[in-house]
Amino acid sequence: MSRSRTTVVDIAHAAGVSKSTVSLVLQGSPLVNEKTREKVNSVIADLGYVYNRGAANLRQARSKIVGIVVNDLTNSFFAELAVGMDMVVQSAGYVQFLAHSGESVDRQREVIASMRENGIAGLILSPARGTEAADLKPLIDSGIPVVVVVRNLSGAKVSTLLSDNYTGAKAAVRHLVSLGHTRIGFMGGFLDTAVFAERLRGYRDALQEAGIAADEALIVHSAPSRAGGVAAVERMMLLADRATAALCLNDAVAFGVCDGLRTVGIEPGKGFGVIGFDDVIEAKTAVPALTTVSVDPQGMGQRAAQLLLKQINAGGNEQESLVTSVRLVVRQSCGAPVRNNHLEEMA
Amino acid sequence: MSRSRTTVVDIAHAAGVSKSTVSLVLQGSPLVNEKTREKVNSVIADLGYVYNRGAANLRQARSKIVGIVVNDLTNSFFAELAVGMDMVVQSAGYVQFLAHSGESVDRQREVIASMRENGIAGLILSPARGTEAADLKPLIDSGIPVVVVVRNLSGAKVSTLLSDNYTGAKAAVRHLVSLGHTRIGFMGGFLDTAVFAERLRGYRDALQEAGIAADEALIVHSAPSRAGGVAAVERMMLLADRATAALCLNDAVAFGVCDGLRTVGIEPGKGFGVIGFDDVIEAKTAVPALTTVSVDPQGMGQRAAQLLLKQINAGGNEQESLVTSVRLVVRQSCGAPVRNNHLEEMA
Repeated sequence: MSRSRTTVVDIAHAAGVSKSTVSLVLQGSPLVNEKTREKVNSVIADLGYVYNRGAANLRQARSKIVGIVVNDLTNSFFAELAVGMDMVVQSAGYVQFLAHSGESVDRQREVIASMRENGIAGLILSPARGTEAADLKPLIDSGIPVVVVVRNLSGAKVSTLLSDNYTGAKAAVRHLVSLGHTRIGFMGGFLDTAVFAERLRGYRDALQEAGIAADEALIVHSAPSRAGGVAAVERMMLLADRATAALCLNDAVAFGVCDGLRTVGIEPGKGFGVIGFDDVIEAKTAVPALTTVSVDPQGMGQRAAQLLLKQINAGGNEQESLVTSVRLVVRQSCGAPVRNNHLEEMA
Repeated sequence: MSRSRTTVVDIAHAAGVSKSTVSLVLQGSPLVNEKTREKVNSVIADLGYVYNRGAANLRQARSKIVGIVVNDLTNSFFAELAVGMDMVVQSAGYVQFLAHSGESVDRQREVIASMRENGIAGLILSPARGTEAADLKPLIDSGIPVVVVVRNLSGAKVSTLLSDNYTGAKAAVRHLVSLGHTRIGFMGGFLDTAVFAERLRGYRDALQEAGIAADEALIVHSAPSRAGGVAAVERMMLLADRATAALCLNDAVAFGVCDGLRTVGIEPGKGFGVIGFDDVIEAKTAVPALTTVSVDPQGMGQRAAQLLLKQINAGGNEQESLVTSVRLVVRQSCGAPVRNNHLEEMA
């Protein structure tokens, strides 16, 4: 790759030390005295030597690379999640392969195989729709630690970091009930993700708790995106007895629902209560500011990376399942009188 | 990393062929007949052997890894750009390190150093604010091909892929002039990026061409984000003689401007004309749908990756500077009567 690769021998010669001393400096060994270290580092800088970590990794049979595969980088939630992971990974002296599966299980398999060939020390995966536990078996069998985030993959022998989708959804619906709503919808998402199932269960249980009969017509499926939210409103508007408020699968859907409502002349937060899920950066500045269940995507990314690094350092066979707490952040889109930003804290 | 690593010798033994034959199959050599190849591949699958590409890269002194560093992954434009790069990189059998510099030159230096230590074959960089040509010199001197995207880095001996910011901005302002606006603002961005300078120049030249005196008060700086757009509107509202329309630095700012206008009771596209720049996915479904200068972020990411792969294959010393064409996409936010989506095509 390099036109004229400087070698350890060149550095040793220029610095007037042995080749072993140079190697010790490169490995950050405490056995070299400060003055020698400085001299060697100064020669390294002058000669433009780059430590070949690929070779070092092979010699040491351990890699400083982690793999991260997310299902949709164009959804702000996953971009913020990736940014959180990036912070922790880089600070720990690792570098990450980061790929986008675009919800394709085939593509996910290809990128994981490619990352594995390139020697990852561990993998963080937000699985594409339709991923099965068996898909991760070869990786797990090889002893590479895997942390599954966001979407649960039941049956997989991996560590998981999920948000408390059930409690969050329940709190959101309780809030809408407390504002007097009885026709409450659930908008966005498809049946085949664990996230959808858990949030829907929270929605159903909160309705039951309030003595409100569930109306299946008010559960409107759509893509889990802004465009999906617009489409969901269109279908909701066809109903004779519409909802007056809705919990949306995520913030992207909620923004789309706000857009769709405006298209038909309904002001979100006034004519219709909207609650999202995630609390992406944009939720705070949107108009109306979005009431949402905060998952803290960057914080979740950081925790996922910490969990993976812990497993890598521990040798990789301990599985941990963590559920991060969430909280309802009441802003303007649900039509509630705004008191403060962090109104309801949940465990 | 792996608990029981299968070796080439194991495969040769199980398949009843020589070790060299297994190696040839792993390298995809045409010297092995089809039947033998199938037998070897079947044993490889059975034994769960993973080709150690890191070792292969070292032996061949070439890597199948590219580095991608973007300044802000939480801005949809850059996320979509990265997704475009990802598509091309993966299809070509490469895998990418992808990092987010968060506009920090220090962090950018660290991640590039880390990627280099891990043996990248080339780098695509959307530079952090304040990056200087000299920052890339060590990388360039080592013969690693570099493609700089989005933000020009004058003086750097690298290939570049930029969008035609000047022409795009000019077309947008011409359009606002054609709608009868004479008080036209430029909202968002800071002075220290090339993108800002080029778009501002297009804005100024279009005003001059129309015989409209530039009013510096209508150029409102802010962070190049949605929150920045909201802040820019607040400052615009303090002016005695406000703008009636604005070209925004990018779509993120434009969405924030729409949010900010609604906060003060002005409906974007009716009481105030808003034009963005980029055409992120959300621009189409937003309400009002955003009139914007389309850069096609995914397409731009694809072209950047193609350019880098071309340089890697060619040996890396040819520099190319490409400017991608842009087009004004007229939707609802500028208040124009909507005729069709791709109204004005530009070379």
